[in-house]
Amino acid sequence: MAQEYVFKPIGFVRTKAREIPRHWSVSKVEGELVIDPAYEKGLQDLRPGERLVVLFVFDRAEPFGPDKLLQTPPHRQKSRGVFSTCSPVRPNPIGLSVVEILEVRGPVIRVRGLDMFDGTPILDLKPYKGYAADESGDP
Amino acid sequence: MAQEYVFKPIGFVRTKAREIPRHWSVSKVEGELVIDPAYEKGLQDLRPGERLVVLFVFDRAEPFGPDKLLQTPPHRQKSRGVFSTCSPVRPNPIGLSVVEILEVRGPVIRVRGLDMFDGTPILDLKPYKGYAADESGDP
Repeated sequence: MAQEYVFKPIGFVRTKAREIPRHWSVSKVEGELVIDPAYEKGLQDLRPGERLVVLFVFDRAEPFGPDKLLQTPPHRQKSRGVFSTCSPVRPNPIGLSVVEILEVRGPVIRVRGLDMFDGTPILDLKPYKGYAADESGDP
Repeated sequence: MAQEYVFKPIGFVRTKAREIPRHWSVSKVEGELVIDPAYEKGLQDLRPGERLVVLFVFDRAEPFGPDKLLQTPPHRQKSRGVFSTCSPVRPNPIGLSVVEILEVRGPVIRVRGLDMFDGTPILDLKPYKGYAADESGDP
């Protein structure tokens, strides 16, 4: 388990929203995923109306430590194991959101449902189809 | 976009399966998520029967390059943009699977639905609840 892995963002989130919802499932915030033009061709087949999985870095989260193994989410009364929460304070601060594609223009994807801050580094985009067990789809 | 992020696995996948399905949504493969005991307390509240999102490293994938921006998945006829596929060959080789928890014993989680190879490094575990838009849940 000693090996480390190095990842370089493929782009970043751009949004003017000042209030960022706690979770994408309750977000109507719009903004853009600004992808490095070097990867533009990889955006082919992303279509408006589809949902997209975004993996990103919680780059403004405080560092994780053993005292963060149990955390009390803001909307709960009781502490929970970190892996049962969406807390940004986790051993590897990777976030996952599902957004709706509004438009793809060159290397920029306009989306709805953001719960990331402006400037958040994006690591990966994945098709949502198939993640919902009851949604037909064959990624 | 120049900054890099370093992540250290929290554990690894253990499975005896020789044949690994193409995608977790069609997998019945059982195995274990062997988590570093340092994080055991963070597994609190993971329950058998629940689904769990696993982020992992495609550590055996060939390196990504510009010639991989379009790829033809094995089950398709036409090439697609990499971000519309689940290919392990992607700019940041991070995989996402959803597995079913069978049992949690200490720092080891027995699961069903693996599509990772034995030894695959695990980066994060997240609650599945809420990822399916039609599933009630408040992570």
